[in-house]
Amino acid sequence: MNRSAKTLALSISLISGLASTQSLLAAETLLGFDAAGSAAQRALEADFDSRIDAREMEAWLRDLSFEPHHVGSPKGYANAQRLAELFTSWGYATEIAEYEILFPTPKTRELELVSPGSFTASLTEEALDEDPSTSRTQDLLPPYNAFSRDGEVEAELVFVNYGMPADYEVLERHGISVEGKIAIAKYGRSWRGIKPKLAGEKGAIGTLIYSDPLDDGYGQGETYPQGPFKHESAVQRGSVMDMPTYPGDVLTPGIGATPDAVRLDRADAPTITEIPVLPISHKDAMPLLAAMGGDVVPAEWRGGLPITYHMGPGPARVRLKLEFNWTMVTAYNVIARLEGSEFPDEWVIRGNHHDGWNHGAADPISGLVALMAEAKAVGELAQAGNAPARTLIYAAWDAEEPGLIGSTEWVEHHAAELSEHAVAYLNTDGNSRGFINIGGSHTLEKLMGGVTADVIDPQTGVSVDARRRAMLTLEGSNARIKNEAKNRAQLRISPLGSGSDYTPFLQHLGIASINIAFGGEAQDGSYHTLYDTYEHYLKFRDPGLYYGVALAQVAGRATLRIANAQRLPFEFAGLTDNIALYLSEIEALTDALRSGTEDTNSLIDAGTYDLALDPTKNLGAPSSNQPVPYFNFARLHNALTRLDAAATAYEGKVDQPASAEVNRLLYSSERLLTRGHGLAGRPWFKHHLYAPGFYTGYGVKTLPGVRESIEQLQFDAVDEQIVIAAQMIEELAARVEDLSR
Amino acid sequence: MNRSAKTLALSISLISGLASTQSLLAAETLLGFDAAGSAAQRALEADFDSRIDAREMEAWLRDLSFEPHHVGSPKGYANAQRLAELFTSWGYATEIAEYEILFPTPKTRELELVSPGSFTASLTEEALDEDPSTSRTQDLLPPYNAFSRDGEVEAELVFVNYGMPADYEVLERHGISVEGKIAIAKYGRSWRGIKPKLAGEKGAIGTLIYSDPLDDGYGQGETYPQGPFKHESAVQRGSVMDMPTYPGDVLTPGIGATPDAVRLDRADAPTITEIPVLPISHKDAMPLLAAMGGDVVPAEWRGGLPITYHMGPGPARVRLKLEFNWTMVTAYNVIARLEGSEFPDEWVIRGNHHDGWNHGAADPISGLVALMAEAKAVGELAQAGNAPARTLIYAAWDAEEPGLIGSTEWVEHHAAELSEHAVAYLNTDGNSRGFINIGGSHTLEKLMGGVTADVIDPQTGVSVDARRRAMLTLEGSNARIKNEAKNRAQLRISPLGSGSDYTPFLQHLGIASINIAFGGEAQDGSYHTLYDTYEHYLKFRDPGLYYGVALAQVAGRATLRIANAQRLPFEFAGLTDNIALYLSEIEALTDALRSGTEDTNSLIDAGTYDLALDPTKNLGAPSSNQPVPYFNFARLHNALTRLDAAATAYEGKVDQPASAEVNRLLYSSERLLTRGHGLAGRPWFKHHLYAPGFYTGYGVKTLPGVRESIEQLQFDAVDEQIVIAAQMIEELAARVEDLSR
Repeated sequence: MNRSAKTLALSISLISGLASTQSLLAAETLLGFDAAGSAAQRALEADFDSRIDAREMEAWLRDLSFEPHHVGSPKGYANAQRLAELFTSWGYATEIAEYEILFPTPKTRELELVSPGSFTASLTEEALDEDPSTSRTQDLLPPYNAFSRDGEVEAELVFVNYGMPADYEVLERHGISVEGKIAIAKYGRSWRGIKPKLAGEKGAIGTLIYSDPLDDGYGQGETYPQGPFKHESAVQRGSVMDMPTYPGDVLTPGIGATPDAVRLDRADAPTITEIPVLPISHKDAMPLLAAMGGDVVPAEWRGGLPITYHMGPGPARVRLKLEFNWTMVTAYNVIARLEGSEFPDEWVIRGNHHDGWNHGAADPISGLVALMAEAKAVGELAQAGNAPARTLIYAAWDAEEPGLIGSTEWVEHHAAELSEHAVAYLNTDGNSRGFINIGGSHTLEKLMGGVTADVIDPQTGVSVDARRRAMLTLEGSNARIKNEAKNRAQLRISPLGSGSDYTPFLQHLGIASINIAFGGEAQDGSYHTLYDTYEHYLKFRDPGLYYGVALAQVAGRATLRIANAQRLPFEFAGLTDNIALYLSEIEALTDALRSGTEDTNSLIDAGTYDLALDPTKNLGAPSSNQPVPYFNFARLHNALTRLDAAATAYEGKVDQPASAEVNRLLYSSERLLTRGHGLAGRPWFKHHLYAPGFYTGYGVKTLPGVRESIEQLQFDAVDEQIVIAAQMIEELAARVEDLSR
Repeated sequence: MNRSAKTLALSISLISGLASTQSLLAAETLLGFDAAGSAAQRALEADFDSRIDAREMEAWLRDLSFEPHHVGSPKGYANAQRLAELFTSWGYATEIAEYEILFPTPKTRELELVSPGSFTASLTEEALDEDPSTSRTQDLLPPYNAFSRDGEVEAELVFVNYGMPADYEVLERHGISVEGKIAIAKYGRSWRGIKPKLAGEKGAIGTLIYSDPLDDGYGQGETYPQGPFKHESAVQRGSVMDMPTYPGDVLTPGIGATPDAVRLDRADAPTITEIPVLPISHKDAMPLLAAMGGDVVPAEWRGGLPITYHMGPGPARVRLKLEFNWTMVTAYNVIARLEGSEFPDEWVIRGNHHDGWNHGAADPISGLVALMAEAKAVGELAQAGNAPARTLIYAAWDAEEPGLIGSTEWVEHHAAELSEHAVAYLNTDGNSRGFINIGGSHTLEKLMGGVTADVIDPQTGVSVDARRRAMLTLEGSNARIKNEAKNRAQLRISPLGSGSDYTPFLQHLGIASINIAFGGEAQDGSYHTLYDTYEHYLKFRDPGLYYGVALAQVAGRATLRIANAQRLPFEFAGLTDNIALYLSEIEALTDALRSGTEDTNSLIDAGTYDLALDPTKNLGAPSSNQPVPYFNFARLHNALTRLDAAATAYEGKVDQPASAEVNRLLYSSERLLTRGHGLAGRPWFKHHLYAPGFYTGYGVKTLPGVRESIEQLQFDAVDEQIVIAAQMIEELAARVEDLSR
């Protein structure tokens, strides 16, 4: 029996087994609904599902990704207009919220190998006959990193691997500094903006970032157009603004970029890079890397080019010249509102950006068309008399790509109202075939567990929750994850760092947020390249848009359950369990850091490195580090114990209808996880449970005040951060105690 | 301070600290010597050291590796003559022991890509201006695998990674069979002969083996002549005879290949491959691999060529034609004997082969010149009145490369005398800069610990034992190894599998053996290629032959201590500890196999694979396996307990002079680890503690009867093998009890 036949047989057997499971599920009440409410809600969701039309979504996808549509482009404006018309036609009160933002575009991009030999980088992506979209490039922004500063530099290259802190420790052991050099880094592992930030901190005068074929090119599989992976000329564009400091318009931190906003001088904007940075293809990187010498890189640094990779410095010497048009453009957020029938002052916000770096079929239109299908269905349901109980706001954000700008400005602009009224924010962005991935506020974990148990995976016929559990059972990276995949009542959702429009909602205002995407079976290298087209997407990412439909089903259910719940579907036991996990991780991290430091220091003192290392090579011993003290985690444990008791007590309340005041206390509980002073050194980030890593970018740091002070060896700050985190948890515990009375 | 300055300063401080350590050591008695004997032996060793001359060794290296000198070549014969003259001139009774052996050489080698496209492999290594040796190719054997059978085959290619059992399990999960196909495998991981053996068992009709640049070419570092790593045209030659069944002449298993020996018909020789096999360069492999399709390989299978690696089958279709001259040639073993002054009937044998695949500077001449320096020094000492107490036999073996033939035939020919007289065999082969590596019989572990503590590392000034401990402290692959590196009285020596001339001594006759080499800081890709030349060796492997001198110091000390000891320096506590480790490994392996089988079977039964795997891909669930029963390891534990007690009791005897009878009981104790019936399916291999793996080749399997029956899922055979192993240990325990009385 071949795989297809097996799958079919399996699907049939599973689907026939499914009927009973589904009736069982249907018999259960939904979180936040009583029995009658659950039945009505399930009927509504079935009606909703029937209105999701893959062919219509595919038509929208083709239309919206027909041409490049970055912020400031004619097509970007046309898309916003088109979206506004559609939302209006579906019954929404729609406005286009405009912000005046700084958006740099390339004026001069020059990169050449000066010596040895000579080579001028093409910096151009090739049009392909097989993909007509790649020839529609009239408004195309060529490959660049937005918010690189202007500059012309010439220096030797140093290869810095992925350009992360640990990579510089390796370079240091080889006696290599980037001081006065140009760093060349691989894309990947960290968010791209970290690479020039760290290189600049280490003294580099410029940064190149290239896509190694081992990571997303021929090393992974067939390249475009034969397969999905990165064409040799493809370049990942992307913002390098210092988003871990603050996202959004670089000139208006913390306030909406309205025409009359007080703006920083560009020279004072702290989130523009310190050094020029340019992304290049591996075709352009190859002659530069091949001309390098110096120490051979460690095995784990090697890429897929047919050369020996060296660290440098030099002898390859390059000249990089970058100049940008530092122009003000208008970002057009499309905001569509459907007034709640019962609780119009409680807002559920559902967003996805509409701007793309190029044609942007996957990113962001594949997610946007799900949102559109949801909004259209909800509009129809409302017109048929089933308006949501709470107010729904559908948002199509502009200028996400250069730095979450459209959403951030809107959130900053409406901060007061949002703090008052916003119940939750549900985000999507790109989507593709595979497994459901949910990140977000753990108070919504149980809700999402219920939603994902009710949506059927289009390939296997089991729920998307069951399919994810199967995958984690096989591939989970540790025993805990494998065990939880089989046994935990709900799968954990991931804590959110950054990387899409939930950031201002969650991390600046403390609005409970959820981010939803399918993926994992259609990895490729098209991200932010010319090749992220309708043709590529339909051929390789989600043929038939089956997972687009599934996304609409998941996000639509989550939105509608929050909108209609008699008691808002927040709960705290899962949150407590997750915080306990994070605390245990931090304690384990601290212990490992302490024993690792002790071991390394004693090996240095014993001269073991000097004896063991090859004396003909440059690799030396690591530097010794300060000993890691013990920290007082007791207050955090005590706070968690209190929260746990309160959360358990609250379990008895979850199926009881709630007053508006109780619901307000529920949805505003996420606000208690923020502090007005924000995180150390980056006050814009108010949330103290979730934050993007200061040196990882998108990657999340949980309990970031505590964790980052330990990771960055700022041991004097740790106990203070523990107190801040404990107070926060105590305040939340007090709130949950109130809710449990 | 740069690394060189640091190293110098360190060496000085360590050497100054060393004086006291050395005097401390000198005050200790040597294993097997009383105080007076120890002092005399140390004085002898100091005299010995003073006679080792790096410049003379370098001259021999240049001379012996000047031209290709494989068995049957003019230069091979000339080298044997030259060696015999030298040994004679140093005072040895020297003979050239000749054997008539089957040695196939290439007549026809054709490889072409038939479709898609066309390509004819060059199958030729390029001469380099930078290395004059590479132009001296008159008697060069072109790249081939000795003991491939003749054949002409045409079929699609299947990429089998390293061609090991686990690789075929992956192929099976992809629904791919090599039945009727030609397998293309990477060199590495397993001994090369396993690749065609396993491919043939799986139904392949031919095998290609190529060197991937990720493993020993540009992926590792600069390629020859700029650096040491594999030139793009380089091909690793090598034997593919089924040595795990028996090594040596394929026509005369178990008996010496004398002119009148009874020989098998070639058609009946079981160690010639079932299918034709050819080694190729990555330059020749590239067009073949690039023409392949089918599933993309898993990440861990990827190599360093700039292509997407596919499993096939096909569409690449190749034709392979191989014909060999199946000629009889004479192998010339040079046997040099120095009669013992006190115990002439106790023989200590020290060997290194002299034949090479090409110029063979590293393999084998770098080891041979150390043996020559030792023999010359020992001859001088004897002439000065310090003849060894026991008889020394220095052997320079021929025909090691095609399958340990020279040594095996000599051992088989002289089996009766050797069983009676041989105390120990000490082997070397190639050598290079780095760390001391010792493998062998664990009864000699303590001896070797003492030797390596007394030889100074030329780069750091500490003992070669201390330097290895430092390396293992840093890089040991697990906590036990790291801990032992710091704390174990002697470092463990490695159990021996196969791969050099110790095999017939140890595994066929049960003669305690030791294999010695330095290495680890000069890895390269020259092995068995045209580029294993004097020029390459002196530039990249051991400039100045400092480690050649250190090798002579280690091997010379070990030889002389065995030759002169008042009580032979065998001991049993270390042996017991090592056997206990192997038993614990086998128990852990069994438990892991059992729980892994249970887990996999339950995941299959639960349909988890079918849900988790991508239904659009061919990767399916693994096959379920039979459950792993529990085995009765008790008898082995009980035998070990008895051996442990006896070994502890024997500790009190080690510094007492011994009678000839006691010494005979000591050196013949290794014989007790053999069984006349040999291992299941391969009776030539008599040793039941150490054997080369039947499916790994050179890699050792300890307690092989037990271990391999478990690994190969032959569970019915396990308990019987446990009994055999336990009886063997009980017999040894009884012997040690006798010795302890």
